Amino acid sequence: MTDALTGSMFLAGRAEAGAGEIFHAVDPATGAILDPPYAAASPTQIVTAVTGAHAALAEFRSASRETRAALLRSIADRLDADPDLAGRVRAETGIGPARIAGERARTSNQLRTFADVVTEGSYLGVRIDHGDPGRTPLPKPDLRHRFIPIGPVAVFGASNFPLAFSVAGGDTASALAAGCPVVVKAHEAHPGTSEIVGRIITEAVAEHGLPPGTFSLIAGPSPDTATALVTHPAVRAVAFTGSRRAGLALTVAAQQRALPIPVYAEMSSINPVFVLSGALAARAAEIGAGLIRSVLTGFGQLCTSPGLVFVPDDPAATALVESAAEAVSAAESGCMLTRRTAESFAAGVEQFATVPGVRLVARAAPDDRLAAGCRPALFETDLATFIRHHEDLAVEVFGAAALIVRVPGDMVPCLREDVLPLLEGQLTATIHAEAIDHAGAADLLADLELLAGRIVFNGWPTGVEVNDAVIHGGPFPATTAPATTSVGTRAIERFLRPVAYQDAPPELLPRELRDDPGLWHRVDGRFSP
Amino acid sequence: MTDALTGSMFLAGRAEAGAGEIFHAVDPATGAILDPPYAAASPTQIVTAVTGAHAALAEFRSASRETRAALLRSIADRLDADPDLAGRVRAETGIGPARIAGERARTSNQLRTFADVVTEGSYLGVRIDHGDPGRTPLPKPDLRHRFIPIGPVAVFGASNFPLAFSVAGGDTASALAAGCPVVVKAHEAHPGTSEIVGRIITEAVAEHGLPPGTFSLIAGPSPDTATALVTHPAVRAVAFTGSRRAGLALTVAAQQRALPIPVYAEMSSINPVFVLSGALAARAAEIGAGLIRSVLTGFGQLCTSPGLVFVPDDPAATALVESAAEAVSAAESGCMLTRRTAESFAAGVEQFATVPGVRLVARAAPDDRLAAGCRPALFETDLATFIRHHEDLAVEVFGAAALIVRVPGDMVPCLREDVLPLLEGQLTATIHAEAIDHAGAADLLADLELLAGRIVFNGWPTGVEVNDAVIHGGPFPATTAPATTSVGTRAIERFLRPVAYQDAPPELLPRELRDDPGLWHRVDGRFSP
Repeated sequence: MTDALTGSMFLAGRAEAGAGEIFHAVDPATGAILDPPYAAASPTQIVTAVTGAHAALAEFRSASRETRAALLRSIADRLDADPDLAGRVRAETGIGPARIAGERARTSNQLRTFADVVTEGSYLGVRIDHGDPGRTPLPKPDLRHRFIPIGPVAVFGASNFPLAFSVAGGDTASALAAGCPVVVKAHEAHPGTSEIVGRIITEAVAEHGLPPGTFSLIAGPSPDTATALVTHPAVRAVAFTGSRRAGLALTVAAQQRALPIPVYAEMSSINPVFVLSGALAARAAEIGAGLIRSVLTGFGQLCTSPGLVFVPDDPAATALVESAAEAVSAAESGCMLTRRTAESFAAGVEQFATVPGVRLVARAAPDDRLAAGCRPALFETDLATFIRHHEDLAVEVFGAAALIVRVPGDMVPCLREDVLPLLEGQLTATIHAEAIDHAGAADLLADLELLAGRIVFNGWPTGVEVNDAVIHGGPFPATTAPATTSVGTRAIERFLRPVAYQDAPPELLPRELRDDPGLWHRVDGRFSP
Repeated sequence: MTDALTGSMFLAGRAEAGAGEIFHAVDPATGAILDPPYAAASPTQIVTAVTGAHAALAEFRSASRETRAALLRSIADRLDADPDLAGRVRAETGIGPARIAGERARTSNQLRTFADVVTEGSYLGVRIDHGDPGRTPLPKPDLRHRFIPIGPVAVFGASNFPLAFSVAGGDTASALAAGCPVVVKAHEAHPGTSEIVGRIITEAVAEHGLPPGTFSLIAGPSPDTATALVTHPAVRAVAFTGSRRAGLALTVAAQQRALPIPVYAEMSSINPVFVLSGALAARAAEIGAGLIRSVLTGFGQLCTSPGLVFVPDDPAATALVESAAEAVSAAESGCMLTRRTAESFAAGVEQFATVPGVRLVARAAPDDRLAAGCRPALFETDLATFIRHHEDLAVEVFGAAALIVRVPGDMVPCLREDVLPLLEGQLTATIHAEAIDHAGAADLLADLELLAGRIVFNGWPTGVEVNDAVIHGGPFPATTAPATTSVGTRAIERFLRPVAYQDAPPELLPRELRDDPGLWHRVDGRFSP
């Protein structure tokens, strides 16, 4: 337990305990219940948070871009400096110190990246088409376009990245960058981590003189809390990373509102990998080992964990499978995020093993000391079995497991005709190919573009860069909004809405829309500067 | 009747009569039934159209940008040159020759604008972040981002713009520009116009050697046709302009699919106008006359027709109302698009007139020779009545009608506190303000930005420019997708989805993603060229 924790939520600047049902964090390594107790937000407390966000909107969105950038940097600096954070993350999630350090750096870097995005200003999408009063038959009006914040955003913390996809994660960073007040619903598995980060953001908001409703943090493990938040009329967008079931429930609730709102839910992906024959011939063992390194990252509890691998059914495939099996057998059992996650993973592995024609190739030894232990698992099957049982096998098993499918005959045409139509939308797809494979890879790529948001060559999908070009999104059910990304600078676009100003008197125009606005823009069809 | 018409739909390049229920176009001026008969698409014919689009996707999207631009220009040229088009539009819609000429020019210009968009290429959103193999602790991958077409698009023709928002309208133009095959569902009020334009597109597709499934045109007045089209698994997006009821029905159908898809529905707007006191004092009569000119454009059958006008309750308001009343009384009754539209307009006017406290100020004389006649109407009321009956008065009456609301006291605070919260999302909002009004206008503008997609100053919302800066969209229920526009160059974005390529071998990269791609792009955080 961290002395700094008081079991608080933060409602528009004020620390306050929930008035609802009590819950505790649990150490997934030991099963120990962690103090302090937390309590769910009452309906009134949820309303306080959302109405605070609504009240903050006008002032927060009209704060200067410099102020919003400074807010994001302050949050980043405080995150980096907090002495209690790493210990509490470790206790609540079982994540090891190195990964926590990496995730903390990723989170603060992400906040600073969005500070840069706000400062640079091209995200405002400024477009100016000057008028022409002399045009015939009708005068041409002056039109100017920019993006404005969509309004208060509800962010749902994810369990698997207690920092990077949680209270101060990419969703919060991009929503605040856009100028949207944020209400975070803490994930119940790491309420203490959430409290620490929630306090950091609350203090940073106050430091910069921004309205307190700019940020609130509420708790509540029940779906009722989520529904109450998403259906409050003042909420204008939802960002979520988690299970398909929960994401779809939020989406339905948002669609049924009198004013429907967008839900950006990143939900489910098995991240197929396609090893072409030249690559298999050149580096079967290396690919097998690389696969398991990727699968073991975060013990497979990553949205981008590669769960399904297609290889040519030739002798070299055996070398790939053996190398992967060796890596799995040598792996230490790890601690999963929660006991429920571990149970669900174990059940998923059991289910794979019962499918006729699927072979359990390797499994890590158990570690009975862990309350939420994970035994990484590797499966193998043939194409006919995969096709016959694809409804059971082409599904996400959240955790460190992968299924290798041997494909006989001419691989690429077979994948295109028989396999890809069975797969749902994906966050990523991966191709391993040597130069000799390129003709086939080009054909495969054309289909994979329609299936996935990011296509990785000769590498692994885990480890997502945060930059301008990345896409962490993809066709349904990878996300509910396939035109968007939840990682990288374009994530801010989810929380923006365009407005055009026709013949506005210059003094009424927002500063960024006046001539020579001092930031990237498009004027009369040309880009400038 | 036009000899060129054969009562055909176009299914992936083949002219074919519908196999379903027979229907006819009706001349709204005379009530005469127009030959030839048309027939609804059978379920099999709908499947033929959509599977044709699906089959065309790979080839059409990989056609060069030059080819797609040439296709759009061919369609535009053929539209401009067609000898039968104007007469058939006139017969089916009652629209006058001048407006038809204007709409035809707008439609072909729109096609050429999207040809330019495709040629210029910035819509591809190319972003390149070069890798760094030496980065620690992990090498930085090379990431490249572009937009690809989302897949086959279902476009619904609108009744009120038989060319510009119909078979070859902005939705079709932007979807084809994006590289998406299109299946248009013709509006049942102008099947002959649709056939002419459908034939033009079909011929242009053939001329450029593109796959025939690139374009299909189906017919069918029943909602079943719409539902079958929207729920076919191969359809990946829907574009619709029309009534709120129909738009929401399509949206629900699209959301309930196993693979939910986006519906871009532009549905309902009353386009409020706010006349501030300085503007009223300076030009009351001019504003009143301008209002009615805007209302009479297309006999109010435009999404952007100004239906609700707020003016300060002072003596000058009487001059505004009188000027507007004079213009309405002097107006000729016009012909509406269909008899049903005319009946629905008449019913809406009746309903306004029955609200206690609402006064019918002026109404154009009837013209009993017209089968679908429209008598423009002007209403006036006080703020208390508007607030009390806003559920009956803040609604779209599709046709040439407007309601003027007199606001007592300090207008801008009153609007912000009492009026704007009663209004739903709008395509446009209009402010009339002189320099003396600017402080109030700035306050009002801050709220209107949250309510509308386009804000017009000292002008009128009808007449939508087609350029880079325009927004024809807005918060629900103006549209179902408030981050988008259905007019202007950004309309193409509705039919695109991003893909990121990680560490792709250069020869597998699409041409536009190689270094120095020869079009606008963002590279390592800088814009280029």
